Amino acid sequence: MRIDIISVLPELMESPFKTSILRRAMDKGLAEVHFHHLRDWAINKHRQIDDEPYGGGAGMVMMVEPLDNCISELKSQRTYDEVVYLTPDGVTLNQKIANSFSIKNNLIFLCGHYKGIDQRVRELHITKEISIGDYVLTGGELAACVLADSIIRLIPGVLNDEQSALTDSFQDDLLSPPIYTRPENYKGLEVPKVLLSGNFAKIEEWRHDEAVRITREKRPDLL
Amino acid sequence: MRIDIISVLPELMESPFKTSILRRAMDKGLAEVHFHHLRDWAINKHRQIDDEPYGGGAGMVMMVEPLDNCISELKSQRTYDEVVYLTPDGVTLNQKIANSFSIKNNLIFLCGHYKGIDQRVRELHITKEISIGDYVLTGGELAACVLADSIIRLIPGVLNDEQSALTDSFQDDLLSPPIYTRPENYKGLEVPKVLLSGNFAKIEEWRHDEAVRITREKRPDLL
Repeated sequence: MRIDIISVLPELMESPFKTSILRRAMDKGLAEVHFHHLRDWAINKHRQIDDEPYGGGAGMVMMVEPLDNCISELKSQRTYDEVVYLTPDGVTLNQKIANSFSIKNNLIFLCGHYKGIDQRVRELHITKEISIGDYVLTGGELAACVLADSIIRLIPGVLNDEQSALTDSFQDDLLSPPIYTRPENYKGLEVPKVLLSGNFAKIEEWRHDEAVRITREKRPDLL
Repeated sequence: MRIDIISVLPELMESPFKTSILRRAMDKGLAEVHFHHLRDWAINKHRQIDDEPYGGGAGMVMMVEPLDNCISELKSQRTYDEVVYLTPDGVTLNQKIANSFSIKNNLIFLCGHYKGIDQRVRELHITKEISIGDYVLTGGELAACVLADSIIRLIPGVLNDEQSALTDSFQDDLLSPPIYTRPENYKGLEVPKVLLSGNFAKIEEWRHDEAVRITREKRPDLL
């Protein structure tokens, strides 16, 4: 998988892609991520990429021309499955969407910033608008990191223990059951006896019942 | 505001806190963020902080004792408003929750990793469990960055243009209307005439109508 990320602040995304699973995926050649600094596509010598909104009001708008030029250039080099705009008014990311992205080959992520992008960029290029949740961030950069992490970890071979991803929360629409490790007794708080029983059928049953109970209690909307 | 972030991978969070709004908030003394490497609280010479789950199964569990020791030490130094565990089975973050966090003084963010934390850490210390969305990430580190960004930008004085934050998506339960900047005509795509009219009452009306229309179309659940 190749992801091209367009941003006015690519340096914000340095450390997440240098560590952990994302780094491992890149080292293994399973994913490559390329950053594109939008200012490199500016159309004047001030490297301007934002301007005031028509009609007035607070906040700046990302200009259509630098974005059009950057995206058009990328598209001339390869075929993209999706051009994704990270924006709070997009479709809310969930595990199903992450799963569907994880089998794509070439993706562009456009990080919104300021008040957002000129509407005409959406009309010209954007094929998917994704929000990572109902809250506002300084820019789309952290959202791009989150989206990349959620999909890259699903690429076969990225996680050491693939079984582990399959038992994560949301893969079966249930939250995870409680988990415990040593010691058996910590300050009087004990591990549930069933987990020490060695009876795996009973343990699986307990875990499923707990997952259903916790999901019903915390997130009845998932059931 | 002071945020203490406990993690097994604090280096993942370096660049987001070094750039943009988060950096500015720290430079202005409006927010301070301290990272705590969980391995510094390990209880054996291997700096072990995770162990196998009781009852078997894939994935490792973050041990209770290092976490208890780290959080207890922090709590002995100051009073925390909340000890937040970032986990996919927490309450889903939204703008109202971000607003409520933005007026707190001292917060601990605990980044989950692997299959999560020993249940007894939740019982001993956690006062709020927060999920940034219905998807699984490699760890809670990106979620901690997202939560920190969503609340720190709301602290008065952090944004240059406070008006701007108030007109963001979600602050009035409406998505944003389309925005445009120069040029008026780009490849035949024109800016709506009303935005060029100079009639601010009409412009406000158009923007409100568009916000309602877009919200009804994309996110009827918000209305």
